[in-house]
Amino acid sequence: MDRRSEYYSAASRLTYVAHFFGLTALILILIWLLHYRGGLNYESNNPDLVFNVHPFLMFFSLIFLGGEAMMAYKTVRATHPVKKSVHMLVHLLAIVLAIVGICAAFKYHDMIYKEDVYSLHSWIGITTICMYCLQWVFGFFTFMFPRASVPTRNKFVPWHLCGGRALLYMAICAALTGLLEKSTFLQLSPHQHESRLLNFTGLAILLFGIFVDLSVALGYYTL
Amino acid sequence: MDRRSEYYSAASRLTYVAHFFGLTALILILIWLLHYRGGLNYESNNPDLVFNVHPFLMFFSLIFLGGEAMMAYKTVRATHPVKKSVHMLVHLLAIVLAIVGICAAFKYHDMIYKEDVYSLHSWIGITTICMYCLQWVFGFFTFMFPRASVPTRNKFVPWHLCGGRALLYMAICAALTGLLEKSTFLQLSPHQHESRLLNFTGLAILLFGIFVDLSVALGYYTL
Repeated sequence: MDRRSEYYSAASRLTYVAHFFGLTALILILIWLLHYRGGLNYESNNPDLVFNVHPFLMFFSLIFLGGEAMMAYKTVRATHPVKKSVHMLVHLLAIVLAIVGICAAFKYHDMIYKEDVYSLHSWIGITTICMYCLQWVFGFFTFMFPRASVPTRNKFVPWHLCGGRALLYMAICAALTGLLEKSTFLQLSPHQHESRLLNFTGLAILLFGIFVDLSVALGYYTL
Repeated sequence: MDRRSEYYSAASRLTYVAHFFGLTALILILIWLLHYRGGLNYESNNPDLVFNVHPFLMFFSLIFLGGEAMMAYKTVRATHPVKKSVHMLVHLLAIVLAIVGICAAFKYHDMIYKEDVYSLHSWIGITTICMYCLQWVFGFFTFMFPRASVPTRNKFVPWHLCGGRALLYMAICAALTGLLEKSTFLQLSPHQHESRLLNFTGLAILLFGIFVDLSVALGYYTL
């Protein structure tokens, strides 16, 4: 087996580790919201339940689905055009869900008469979703329809990959600052179970990102 | 010019953008600590001045010096072994300064009788510094002394690169959660200049990381 295929197969194995951390983070977030925070409901009259839609959807869309879409070229067993369509459609679904997630935060702020977009978390988050949409549109018109010529497409692949990775890490930074901000607003003491749960959720999210990155990047190195 | 050299030269140009954001973040942190927070002094009897050493040194070591060390292969005009030594020594300096920076946080906690290592910020930070040291030791014994054989070294390069990038982003996550935590402890109102300054510092740190990543990664893609 030559070195490139060796990296490819190592990268494929790493997708399992990424899935593990992604699912762990998903379960931890659901335990947090359902067990400690009373559930989530966009249509509720209780602002807290409206807010709870925000952390769930933001993680599930830009991070979980975004990460899975990045790994689709390794995890989906199909032809290249099918993999590419899965990649594109999962990212599109992520954008739609992320927009609903952001609306939940704005609706919550309206309900409790609080200002929007003033914290570092929101600045990073808003920048991320805007750049994510741009990256999708750019990717769509370069790689899908109307497709650019082969040399042009090949030329843009590294930029698309690097940009996608930067966006994943940006979304993770937004998530971690968001978790920390929320745990401060809730005035959790460090010894509460909920506080520990949030820390483990944050770590699982970060590890998911790192393993998605590793599994996507490793196959592209040729040395 | 073939595609690989094209990426290399684009990557070299991106180092200037990275320097710009790195220096911006450095200046913003110094303005914050010197103008708004009364300066920094490890030996002071005022716990706040002791604490201020922590954000400065952590950013300056693991992020600023770490990022510059990653870009040393592009920015230092010298032979390969010299570049490699600069890369290794700057990372070593970063580790030493980071340890002093962490000691400042512990000393501050001792002075105000506060617990250590309970927040998400500290969990990410401690994990990052431990992994950073391991990565350095692993890198030293693989690439410097006693050097492994050429095929073994080549085999480990992608892991070293991906690991280094993950560590840079981990350090950035630690910095952003730290800035947000501090701005909460200080109970800054969103409209205060200091609050905005901290948000811009966070964004500059994140952008520095993204451009370091881009400038290091682009040259390695061959498509």
